[in-house]
Amino acid sequence: MIAVTTSTGTLVLLRHGESEWNKANLFTGWVDVPLTEKGREEAARGGRLMAEHGLLPDVSHTSLLRRAIMTAELALHEADRQWIPVKRSWRLNERHYGALQGKDKAATLAEYGEEQFMTWRRSYDTPPPPIEPGSEFAQDGDARYSFLPPEARPATECLADVVVRMLPYWYDAIVPDLRLGQTVLVAAHGNSLRALVKHLDGMGDDEVVGLNIPTGVPLRYDLDDDLRPVKAGGEYLDPDAAAAAIEAVKNQGKR
Amino acid sequence: MIAVTTSTGTLVLLRHGESEWNKANLFTGWVDVPLTEKGREEAARGGRLMAEHGLLPDVSHTSLLRRAIMTAELALHEADRQWIPVKRSWRLNERHYGALQGKDKAATLAEYGEEQFMTWRRSYDTPPPPIEPGSEFAQDGDARYSFLPPEARPATECLADVVVRMLPYWYDAIVPDLRLGQTVLVAAHGNSLRALVKHLDGMGDDEVVGLNIPTGVPLRYDLDDDLRPVKAGGEYLDPDAAAAAIEAVKNQGKR
Repeated sequence: MIAVTTSTGTLVLLRHGESEWNKANLFTGWVDVPLTEKGREEAARGGRLMAEHGLLPDVSHTSLLRRAIMTAELALHEADRQWIPVKRSWRLNERHYGALQGKDKAATLAEYGEEQFMTWRRSYDTPPPPIEPGSEFAQDGDARYSFLPPEARPATECLADVVVRMLPYWYDAIVPDLRLGQTVLVAAHGNSLRALVKHLDGMGDDEVVGLNIPTGVPLRYDLDDDLRPVKAGGEYLDPDAAAAAIEAVKNQGKR
Repeated sequence: MIAVTTSTGTLVLLRHGESEWNKANLFTGWVDVPLTEKGREEAARGGRLMAEHGLLPDVSHTSLLRRAIMTAELALHEADRQWIPVKRSWRLNERHYGALQGKDKAATLAEYGEEQFMTWRRSYDTPPPPIEPGSEFAQDGDARYSFLPPEARPATECLADVVVRMLPYWYDAIVPDLRLGQTVLVAAHGNSLRALVKHLDGMGDDEVVGLNIPTGVPLRYDLDDDLRPVKAGGEYLDPDAAAAAIEAVKNQGKR
């Protein structure tokens, strides 16, 4: 099964489904909220789609946040691949939402207006204001980041920041698993996956602003020897569900 | 948190709770059956006990069987440690029950008589008859063992066999994590944990026959520099629940 070859494996991206704070319409970022029942069902559907397509991961990578970890667990149990090796990194975490973490999206939109709101949500290089250390939704005392020196721990991030901190994990942890010829699952978040897709598809900074990745629908990338996609944009295992979910994400935050 | 030191960490053993086949009174072994709702609750209780005692794992080791994998996942989610590294090995699997896998325990007892039945269940060095390759409850085509050459894949096991195949994983995977000073969770099975406890406590072959490990109650071992228990037998995080569960296990299989 696992052989050291120069053939390149298959990448499967899976964005976690609805969390408690998606449902409550709050900015989440690095706050570690669980999936809702709907989110758990989305994860299981992702696993069923993988099983139906015979796309069975040999190894799984997740962020350190439970909504992605649980998504991988539920999907892999569904696909009878719960026994594969698991690797995790803060570099796959959702974008840190800075001072907006824990704030109501509609109230933020009302307070700051649509232009500022959309800049924080969607601009490539404008981060929200940094979170106050020690404040309610900061991660200062969180054991999972305790090995990171303070200067490496973000207080806010734009998508450009996510690209910079995600890429080392892509090169040093995910690519080596692909180089073994394995099928590699990456269960993560809207923005860490957008950062990865931007890199894979060579998208420009302006282009990625319009990129939406649906929740719970595995996105398959076959890669050539240079780790470039054989087909730009990859292939969703359920294209109709993906298209519908992309529409839903686009309309999120709109009144 | 994680520092390379010569101090020895803390070992936490957790036996999975009720599975569908425990409930149905069938011999399970390497057959990959899920937990029941009761088993899931036992796992969560194990996680709550770890959190209450401030015994927070830094790394988790499981077998390749979903009842142990799910036990670790549920316990770690409960203790807010779902983000720690996870390692898995077939060497932590339950004892392979040979030709008895899938058979009803009461029917087996009636068919073979109490002496033979208890020999298969509890003797140290008498395995059940080997499972027929290709039969319903054999693991021939199971992808998770595909990397193992045929001679390394058991067709039946006694407890002595489990000790032999478990110990390399103890020395090569678990001990190095303990040597880093970490708290190490091992979520596994009645017999793989009995094999480990036999080794740790230096129990004789006759002595281990009477050893029962309760389900869902974390068993803590503090170890000295030679990896010997500071306190023989370790310490259950809930001694009353452990004593009650040991009684229940003892009476299992009795009419």
